[in-house]
Amino acid sequence: MNEAAITLDGWYVLHDFRSIDWASWKLVDAAEREEAVAEFKAYLAKVNEADVAKTGAHALYSIVGQKADFMLMTLRETMDELQELEAEFNKLKIADFTIPAYSYVSVVELSNYLAGESNEDPYQNPHVRSRLYPELPRSQYVCFYPMDKRRQGNDNWYMLGMDDRKSLMRSHGMIGRGYAGKVKQIISGSIGFDDHEWGVTLFADDVLQFKKLVYEMRFDEVSARYGEFGSFFVGNILDDEKLTKFLTI
Amino acid sequence: MNEAAITLDGWYVLHDFRSIDWASWKLVDAAEREEAVAEFKAYLAKVNEADVAKTGAHALYSIVGQKADFMLMTLRETMDELQELEAEFNKLKIADFTIPAYSYVSVVELSNYLAGESNEDPYQNPHVRSRLYPELPRSQYVCFYPMDKRRQGNDNWYMLGMDDRKSLMRSHGMIGRGYAGKVKQIISGSIGFDDHEWGVTLFADDVLQFKKLVYEMRFDEVSARYGEFGSFFVGNILDDEKLTKFLTI
Amino acid sequence: MNEAAITLDGWYVLHDFRSIDWASWKLVDAAEREEAVAEFKAYLAKVNEADVAKTGAHALYSIVGQKADFMLMTLRETMDELQELEAEFNKLKIADFTIPAYSYVSVVELSNYLAGESNEDPYQNPHVRSRLYPELPRSQYVCFYPMDKRRQGNDNWYMLGMDDRKSLMRSHGMIGRGYAGKVKQIISGSIGFDDHEWGVTLFADDVLQFKKLVYEMRFDEVSARYGEFGSFFVGNILDDEKLTKFLTI
Amino acid sequence: MNEAAITLDGWYVLHDFRSIDWASWKLVDAAEREEAVAEFKAYLAKVNEADVAKTGAHALYSIVGQKADFMLMTLRETMDELQELEAEFNKLKIADFTIPAYSYVSVVELSNYLAGESNEDPYQNPHVRSRLYPELPRSQYVCFYPMDKRRQGNDNWYMLGMDDRKSLMRSHGMIGRGYAGKVKQIISGSIGFDDHEWGVTLFADDVLQFKKLVYEMRFDEVSARYGEFGSFFVGNILDDEKLTKFLTI
Amino acid sequence: MNEAAITLDGWYVLHDFRSIDWASWKLVDAAEREEAVAEFKAYLAKVNEADVAKTGAHALYSIVGQKADFMLMTLRETMDELQELEAEFNKLKIADFTIPAYSYVSVVELSNYLAGESNEDPYQNPHVRSRLYPELPRSQYVCFYPMDKRRQGNDNWYMLGMDDRKSLMRSHGMIGRGYAGKVKQIISGSIGFDDHEWGVTLFADDVLQFKKLVYEMRFDEVSARYGEFGSFFVGNILDDEKLTKFLTI
Repeated sequence: MNEAAITLDGWYVLHDFRSIDWASWKLVDAAEREEAVAEFKAYLAKVNEADVAKTGAHALYSIVGQKADFMLMTLRETMDELQELEAEFNKLKIADFTIPAYSYVSVVELSNYLAGESNEDPYQNPHVRSRLYPELPRSQYVCFYPMDKRRQGNDNWYMLGMDDRKSLMRSHGMIGRGYAGKVKQIISGSIGFDDHEWGVTLFADDVLQFKKLVYEMRFDEVSARYGEFGSFFVGNILDDEKLTKFLTI
Repeated sequence: MNEAAITLDGWYVLHDFRSIDWASWKLVDAAEREEAVAEFKAYLAKVNEADVAKTGAHALYSIVGQKADFMLMTLRETMDELQELEAEFNKLKIADFTIPAYSYVSVVELSNYLAGESNEDPYQNPHVRSRLYPELPRSQYVCFYPMDKRRQGNDNWYMLGMDDRKSLMRSHGMIGRGYAGKVKQIISGSIGFDDHEWGVTLFADDVLQFKKLVYEMRFDEVSARYGEFGSFFVGNILDDEKLTKFLTI
Repeated sequence: MNEAAITLDGWYVLHDFRSIDWASWKLVDAAEREEAVAEFKAYLAKVNEADVAKTGAHALYSIVGQKADFMLMTLRETMDELQELEAEFNKLKIADFTIPAYSYVSVVELSNYLAGESNEDPYQNPHVRSRLYPELPRSQYVCFYPMDKRRQGNDNWYMLGMDDRKSLMRSHGMIGRGYAGKVKQIISGSIGFDDHEWGVTLFADDVLQFKKLVYEMRFDEVSARYGEFGSFFVGNILDDEKLTKFLTI
Repeated sequence: MNEAAITLDGWYVLHDFRSIDWASWKLVDAAEREEAVAEFKAYLAKVNEADVAKTGAHALYSIVGQKADFMLMTLRETMDELQELEAEFNKLKIADFTIPAYSYVSVVELSNYLAGESNEDPYQNPHVRSRLYPELPRSQYVCFYPMDKRRQGNDNWYMLGMDDRKSLMRSHGMIGRGYAGKVKQIISGSIGFDDHEWGVTLFADDVLQFKKLVYEMRFDEVSARYGEFGSFFVGNILDDEKLTKFLTI
Repeated sequence: MNEAAITLDGWYVLHDFRSIDWASWKLVDAAEREEAVAEFKAYLAKVNEADVAKTGAHALYSIVGQKADFMLMTLRETMDELQELEAEFNKLKIADFTIPAYSYVSVVELSNYLAGESNEDPYQNPHVRSRLYPELPRSQYVCFYPMDKRRQGNDNWYMLGMDDRKSLMRSHGMIGRGYAGKVKQIISGSIGFDDHEWGVTLFADDVLQFKKLVYEMRFDEVSARYGEFGSFFVGNILDDEKLTKFLTI
């Protein structure tokens, strides 16, 4: 049997994309809207406590185009907490004015393709920990897309030997490294959890870097022959002030 | 003609995934909501009588992400009972606040790929019976996905000879066995009943084991070359207490 | 040019799958519901007159799972009658509480792959007539699925010579014959009428025979290499008594 | 570069498929319904003026099955007129009781594959003109489907040389000619206008001829190797009397 | 690793396709409708300020067929401005009577496939600037479609060497040049931003030129072997007068 990749797994992740039912939202009187926004902000503040305590993280972005109006991404130590946060959101007043648009369930993942040999427990390695349990940057822009490795005719990633996969992933990683300082990348695994195999979340202060990075990678064999991509979402950060403006009619 | 696999078939299975229309649910006054929850619980208690009598089984899980809010899985001796349970659910008050999200119709199945030679009637074998008419564990987590065996160009499972299929399935089964005690797996056949060929339901107390198991299998030729996967659903158990909390506004 | 198959064509067929809007149905007061059910039953009685006169046939089944709640299958001498029956159904009170779920338009078909040589007009042959203008059995279960013959790379049914197709269909037919007395099969052609090339309707008193038949056939080259399948629907018969129960709140 | 086919282009075509919201239509009182039908008929009469003046054409058919309830096909000299007719329809009362089901935008087309050599301006040739600016027959039945020429691996129509394409199309055209007098065929090109490359509209007084024609063609290499088909719609003519009956509750 | 194409990137682009909920729009009283139209026109006037200042551009077209009723295309210096324009539109009264139909997020792009060697900063080149920051013509017709370069078996664009891609793109560009003066083409890149890799927007005063251009290109190897196309939208310009008429009941 072919040697399987081994992963290190960190926080569980829920990407929750919602559209706003603007016509209904406008019908509500201003006081009720303000109350709903205040309740939503209180929820976000509570969500943020995990960021502060470093027991989780979250990010809130508006999404450009009709695929969704905003995305709330939450990372937690357990799948149960994700479920509870989702249920809690659904019980907020603001949720009544949102329409589910897309969601993604995964867990932050590092594979052993790029790992060196070591006798240490990687879960004790501070560098590894900072990647499995990441602080999310408050970058201006976010990009999210799910993806698979292709299994089609002669282009079957899972039939390649471990050494071939390692060498391909190494060259792929080189491209990513060229964007260090420009793009922060979170890879989360979703095999067994959602419809694609991975979710990729990118953060940057220059939105063009998303396009440059993904385009450059597409010429690399790992993407060119073996990448299958789902929908792409791009958005702008929704800090407190922008959120207020966004929801004000 | 190619030798077909032979199956043993047990209980019929309905996986019923529903989303909750939270905005409408909130509009109902609290007393009516309580009544609806009580009626739903009475229905679940009745459903559970088959578990007790060992004439069927059921499982109730909340689902993470937007694909659904909960899944009720029921196993029964006849397709008619599944239909009746479904109709009965639809007539409950709570059903008016649910939106059909996905369903799957199948029958618990064991194939002869891994069976030894025997003159006994397998349906009398207690081990076989415990797998065809399974008690469902009250594990913390569930994972469900439908799948097909590929029929595409050179990767055509159904054109492989019986011996090749047997030997591939044996090595595939080895991986599964490595998760014994960690993941309980129910395979149900749906050829002729639903859009994919099988449904796979996994139960575990450590949700990460779903990902580890499915990922490891993906490098095995049976999945790598011949597996086609539908949507993946993952969820947390909804026991009586959690169900109350889940439905409380 | 490749020799085309020749078909004999019988009654036109409409498979009409509907979901019930249970929440709305419950809102109607009991007397109005009873009236709607009575009107629906009067419609079914009228539909049945063609069964009696042998100028058509029909079948009514509930469908398991969320794809639909029931299927009304009608066979008639002309496409016009199908259209009229559909329009008439849509004007019934009960129709206001149904949601279109799926439909299929086809004509009962026999191909010349399995036909012997003969100078007779096959349309005068009583055996052929009984298959082109079939009485529908009141079996406990129904299975419906649409399908195509594959045209993909080396697996292109329509590029095979007539002799190859004949010999493949003969071996395929042998499997079907093994289910004589257990499964009644109606093949209807839909090229030019609907999105797939054929609809297959199976009737049986043992629902498991659907799975056994379709699974066994899948290992046969006709299905293994050349079959492309749409959605599968399975259901339980809705006789007068069951229909009453089904629609009673 | 490969030699491109040259086309002659006639009238622009809009196929507009609509479902009727029967439940809402029934709720309207009879007088209002009659008024809406009269307004719709006045619109159709106005549409028909172009048929009379030979500056356009139209056809109205009910559609069998759930894909749509009726199809209005209009041909005009400019794309602008199609847009205006569509907008005008949307402003009719009857439109409020319809649900968009499918539409197709194209232009009547003749390709040079089957053309002989000539120094004449083909747009002055009466035979060519009668095909580019066709009178639509009031046949009992209509069939519509969109299609593409395949570009897949070794089956890539657009990589074939002009001579190969010409010779393939000639044999394909022979099949069509066999249905002269039975089926009238309008080919309209939609590259750059809609999602498929062509729309095919067939008219016949014997609905079975659609199936015979399309099935026979499927064995021809042009369809067998190079045809990709979208949805098929089949319908019965809606003349004034049938339209009245169709819309009467 | 394969040499990636380098792009020059200009204004960000949002294509926003909307359907009109005509039934609801008619229900509003005439004065309120007029007010909503006036507010919409004020919004468009504000959008147009960027066209005047050459800090952006926009185009408004009605769309033929059911895919959408109109498309508003906006180009801006930042992704943030696109998001703000979208949010502002959603807060207009008219937006309450629109249904999101499709959208596309991209950035105007020039690739280096056709670029000559130069030491100059291309972003200072007036010709390059006029293409990256284009004035949109007020042509009678628009055509939009998204597309990908294929990565499938032997037809994998991203596995071709730079020289092969350059030479293929050069011959492809020749076709485009043949339409100079007839069709204006804006290519915008969407890798990392939306589901396809590019959006293509064409403008012309003769709608037939869209079909001629796209059809001719389809025989070129770049499209024939490597082009994958999404939905095609075609529309007529909505100037102030036409917009008034379009929205008048």
